[in-house]
Amino acid sequence: MRGGSTVALYSVVELPFTGPATPVPADRTPLTVTFAHEGGHVVEVPGFWDGADRYLARFAPEVEGRWTWSSASDVPRLAGRSGELAVGPAEPGEHGPVRVAGTFHLAHADGTPFRPVGATVYNWLHQDEPLFSETVDAIAGAGLNKLRFMVFPQAGGYVEHFPELLPFERGADGRYDVSRPVVEYFRRLDAAVRLLQARGVQADVLIYNAYDNARFGLDTLTEDEDAAYLRYLVARLSAYPNVWWSLCNEFDLLDRPTARWDRAGELLAATDPHEHLRSVHNWVRLYDYNKPWVTHASIQLGQATEDVGRASLFRDAYRKPIVLDEIKYEGDVPERWGHLTPQQLVHQFWIATVSGCYASQGESFTLENGSLHIVQGGPLRGESPPRLGFLRGLLEQVDGAGLDPIDGWWDDGFVVGVPGSTYLQYLGRRSPATWTFRLPQGRWGARLETGDRFEVDVIDTWNMTVTPVGRTFELTDVRRNEAFAGDAAPVRLPAGEALAVRVRRSGPAAPTSTT
Amino acid sequence: MRGGSTVALYSVVELPFTGPATPVPADRTPLTVTFAHEGGHVVEVPGFWDGADRYLARFAPEVEGRWTWSSASDVPRLAGRSGELAVGPAEPGEHGPVRVAGTFHLAHADGTPFRPVGATVYNWLHQDEPLFSETVDAIAGAGLNKLRFMVFPQAGGYVEHFPELLPFERGADGRYDVSRPVVEYFRRLDAAVRLLQARGVQADVLIYNAYDNARFGLDTLTEDEDAAYLRYLVARLSAYPNVWWSLCNEFDLLDRPTARWDRAGELLAATDPHEHLRSVHNWVRLYDYNKPWVTHASIQLGQATEDVGRASLFRDAYRKPIVLDEIKYEGDVPERWGHLTPQQLVHQFWIATVSGCYASQGESFTLENGSLHIVQGGPLRGESPPRLGFLRGLLEQVDGAGLDPIDGWWDDGFVVGVPGSTYLQYLGRRSPATWTFRLPQGRWGARLETGDRFEVDVIDTWNMTVTPVGRTFELTDVRRNEAFAGDAAPVRLPAGEALAVRVRRSGPAAPTSTT
Repeated sequence: MRGGSTVALYSVVELPFTGPATPVPADRTPLTVTFAHEGGHVVEVPGFWDGADRYLARFAPEVEGRWTWSSASDVPRLAGRSGELAVGPAEPGEHGPVRVAGTFHLAHADGTPFRPVGATVYNWLHQDEPLFSETVDAIAGAGLNKLRFMVFPQAGGYVEHFPELLPFERGADGRYDVSRPVVEYFRRLDAAVRLLQARGVQADVLIYNAYDNARFGLDTLTEDEDAAYLRYLVARLSAYPNVWWSLCNEFDLLDRPTARWDRAGELLAATDPHEHLRSVHNWVRLYDYNKPWVTHASIQLGQATEDVGRASLFRDAYRKPIVLDEIKYEGDVPERWGHLTPQQLVHQFWIATVSGCYASQGESFTLENGSLHIVQGGPLRGESPPRLGFLRGLLEQVDGAGLDPIDGWWDDGFVVGVPGSTYLQYLGRRSPATWTFRLPQGRWGARLETGDRFEVDVIDTWNMTVTPVGRTFELTDVRRNEAFAGDAAPVRLPAGEALAVRVRRSGPAAPTSTT
Repeated sequence: MRGGSTVALYSVVELPFTGPATPVPADRTPLTVTFAHEGGHVVEVPGFWDGADRYLARFAPEVEGRWTWSSASDVPRLAGRSGELAVGPAEPGEHGPVRVAGTFHLAHADGTPFRPVGATVYNWLHQDEPLFSETVDAIAGAGLNKLRFMVFPQAGGYVEHFPELLPFERGADGRYDVSRPVVEYFRRLDAAVRLLQARGVQADVLIYNAYDNARFGLDTLTEDEDAAYLRYLVARLSAYPNVWWSLCNEFDLLDRPTARWDRAGELLAATDPHEHLRSVHNWVRLYDYNKPWVTHASIQLGQATEDVGRASLFRDAYRKPIVLDEIKYEGDVPERWGHLTPQQLVHQFWIATVSGCYASQGESFTLENGSLHIVQGGPLRGESPPRLGFLRGLLEQVDGAGLDPIDGWWDDGFVVGVPGSTYLQYLGRRSPATWTFRLPQGRWGARLETGDRFEVDVIDTWNMTVTPVGRTFELTDVRRNEAFAGDAAPVRLPAGEALAVRVRRSGPAAPTSTT
C-alpha cells in the first residue's frame, strides 16, 4: 500500500498498524488517518483495534487520483506513518455508498439511483451456516436490495437460537468492558456486510437493540459505553459502501430520554467519515426525523400504507426520503403485526410507491423450530417476495431521482411520477373496467403541453405483467391542474384488482426540468 | 393603579407613562415593566409607544394575590416608576389565555378545555362598519370560536376594499419608518381583539402577510424592520387573553429563507410575556412544526381531511396540537380551494375530529361586490356553519383533554376518545344499516375491563341530532386489542350518510387514567 498501489474507486483500503496489545481506553479512538486528495479534499478516518497488537484503518475513496495519508495517535507506535494511494476507476457494478438524492429519494455516490425494496431478518448475524448464507441467497434471489439486521443478538419471542459469541469481554466486575471488543464477533460482522455487498444488498445495520430482555445485558450499557461501541462499529464498517445506519429498532421500547438518542445520532453523524445514511426506527412513537443528523425517515406504521393519501404526509412533514421499514409482515402468527396476506403486503408496497415512499418486507410464518423468518432468516416461503422484486424492476426503469406525488393537494390525484416524463397510478382494490387518460399537472418540474404524446402500459401487480396498450395518447386539452387526450377511447382493463397504469412520454422530447 | 387597586385575574392591567414624543429607535423596547408576585413569580412586560408622549405597558396577571411592579428604561422619564397591584378572582366566564394541554389539545390558563372550531376572514380588520361587527356576530352566532385574520391589509384576488389607514408613517425616503407606528391603526387592532374577546372568539393574529402583491409594500420590510414591528405588536396585544399568534398565512409564498422564519418565531417566543400559542401557516410546503418555538401545527392541506387515517399522522410527526387551518372552503368560486359543498366541509371537519385534530372553516361564495366572506366577512350564508357549531357543542361535552385516536396502529380502528370514558366513531360516507358494539383497547390511559357498561348515542352530523340508543352495553369479552359486549343486538341506524356513534361509560366509575 505504501508504495502507491492503485485501488478502485469505492473499494476498501485497509491500512494495518502495529501497536500496544493492551486495550486503548474506550473513550478515545486509538488512531486517526488523514487521507488527502491531490485536489484538496481531505477525509479523516478513525482506526480501530483488531486484536492482539493489530490495528486497522479502513477507507473507501470517492475521488479518483492521487491521495496521500498520514496517521496521528496518542500512542507513538501508531502515529507518524504516511503513504500514498493511487485511485483508479470503480470496479464494474460498484457505484459507492447510497445517499439522499432529489430530497425524497436515494442514489449511489456515482449518481446511480437506488430504489430500496427492503427485507428484515433481525437476528441474522447470529445464525450458523447454511442458514446464514441461505438467507442472503433468498433475499437477493427475490430481488430485494436492503436487509435490516441487528448487531447485538435478539432475545424474547420467537427466538430459538442464542449465540455464544458476544461483542465484548467482561471485566472483573462481570460487566462488559467496551474497551475490549471481541474481535471474532466483529470480524463476523465485517464478513456479513461483505457478503451482502457481494450480492448487491444494502446492509441496514441496527446499532442498538430493544429486544435484549435482560438476557445479554447489552441494553444496560451506559451512554458512554454505548458511545465507545458506536465509535468502534463506525471505524470498522464505515468503509464498506453498502452500509446504512439505524440507531435502533423500535427505539421507544427502551426507557431512555429522547435527548440520549439525539446525542447518539449526532455522534454517529460526526464520527462516520463516509457519511452513510442515518436514521432510527420506532415502535409507537415517531422520532423527530427533522433533526439534522437524520438523513431519512425509517418508520414503523403499517396503517400509513393501508390506503393512499397517508404516507405522503410524512414527506410533507420531514422533506426527506421516507422508508416505511415495518408495515406488518406476511405470515401466520396470531399477533396482528404478523399475518398479512401476500396480496395485502403487495398492496401496501404499491401504496407506499404511489405515495412517493419506500418500504421493507418481512415474513412471519411459523417455522418448524418455532422461530420466524424475520428473526432467523432462511428461504422465503411467502408469495409476496417475487411481486416485490417485480415492483423493484419497475422502479429501476424510472428515469429520474424517483417517483414523486404530482399533485398531492387533491384527493383524486394520487398519481406519482417524474413530471413530463413518467406517471404511475395504482388502482388498488378497485377493479375498474376501463381507465380514461388524464394526467395531473403538478406545481413542479416540466409542464405538460398540448401535443405531448404518451404511451400507456397496464401493470398487473400480482400476476407481474406489463401490457402495452399499443396506442399513443396526445394531449389536446391542458388545463391549470390536469391534462386530457381529447376523445381518446378509454383503456380496457383486464379483470382483477391490484392493477396499475404507467404513462410514459413518447414525444416530443421532454423539456429540461425546471425543478 | 399605583395605590393597589384590585383587578381581576386574566384582566388587562394598563399602566400609562409619559415620555419623549420623538420616537424611540425601532431596534429597542422603550421600557420594560417587571411584575413580581408575592410568591416569587416574575413577569417582564415590554411597554410600547402609544402616540405623542404617551407610553403604555399592558399586563394580564395569572396568579391571584399581591404583585409589585417597577419600570426600567434607557429613557429616564420612563424608568424607575413602581407600584402595587392586588389581583382577585377572574370575572365569570373568563378563563385566561389558551395553551397546549394533554400534548395534542388546548385549554385555558385555568384548565378549562378549549376546543377550536375556527373561522377565517383575512381582511376583516380593514373593513368598515357595519360589516366589521356583523362578521363577528355571524361567527360567534354560528358557534365558531376562533378567527384567523391578518394585521396587514390584503391585496390581490377577490379584494374589493383597500384601506387608507396603514400601519407605519413613511420616512423622507418614502419607505415605511417602523419606529413610527400609526397609533390609530393599532388602536383599531386593539379594539378588534377586544371585540372578539367580548364575543368569546379567539383572535388568531396573522402577523405577516403573503398577499401584499406590491400594493402596500409591507412585505418588503427588512428582517430588522419586521422584528421591530413584531415587538411592537406583541407589546400591544400580548395582555389580551384571546390572542393566538400565527407568523404568516401561506408563509412559503414569500421568497424568504426558512431561517428567517425560524428567527422570527424565536423572537416571538422570547418576546411574548404571556406565552400565547404560536404557529405559522403554509401554502404548499409545511413548516417544521417540531421546532421548539412552535406550540401547535397550523396546517393547510385539505387532502389530509378527505379520508380517515391521514391527519392523525401529523400528530405522530409533531406531537403537538394539530389545527388544520385551511381545508378548502364552502363556496362557489371556480378555483378548487373554493367550491366545497357544505356536506363535504362538514365531512372533513368530522374526519379531522376523529383524527384527533381540529379544523377551521371559511366561506367563498361570490358576493355582490365580487369579494368573498374569507376576504371581507359579513353574514355567513353557507349551510355548514350551524353543523360546525353542532360539532363544537359535542366537543364541549368531552370530559378530558380532548379526543385521541385510541388505536392508530390498526386500519379498522379509527375511533377517537378518552380511554375508558368516551369513544367517538364517524361512519363517514358509508350508510351502514347497523352498528355493532365494539371498542378498541388502546395502549394508553384507562383499560377496558369486563363488566364496564356503556351508553350509546347515534349522531346525525348533518341533521344535528343526538339520539340515545336507550340500551346499556356491558363488556363481556375484553381482548388485547378490542372489547365486545357479548351478543348485544346491533344498533339500527337511520338512513343517510354522515352518521357518528358516541359511546360513553355509564358504569362502574372509570379508574383513574394511567397516562
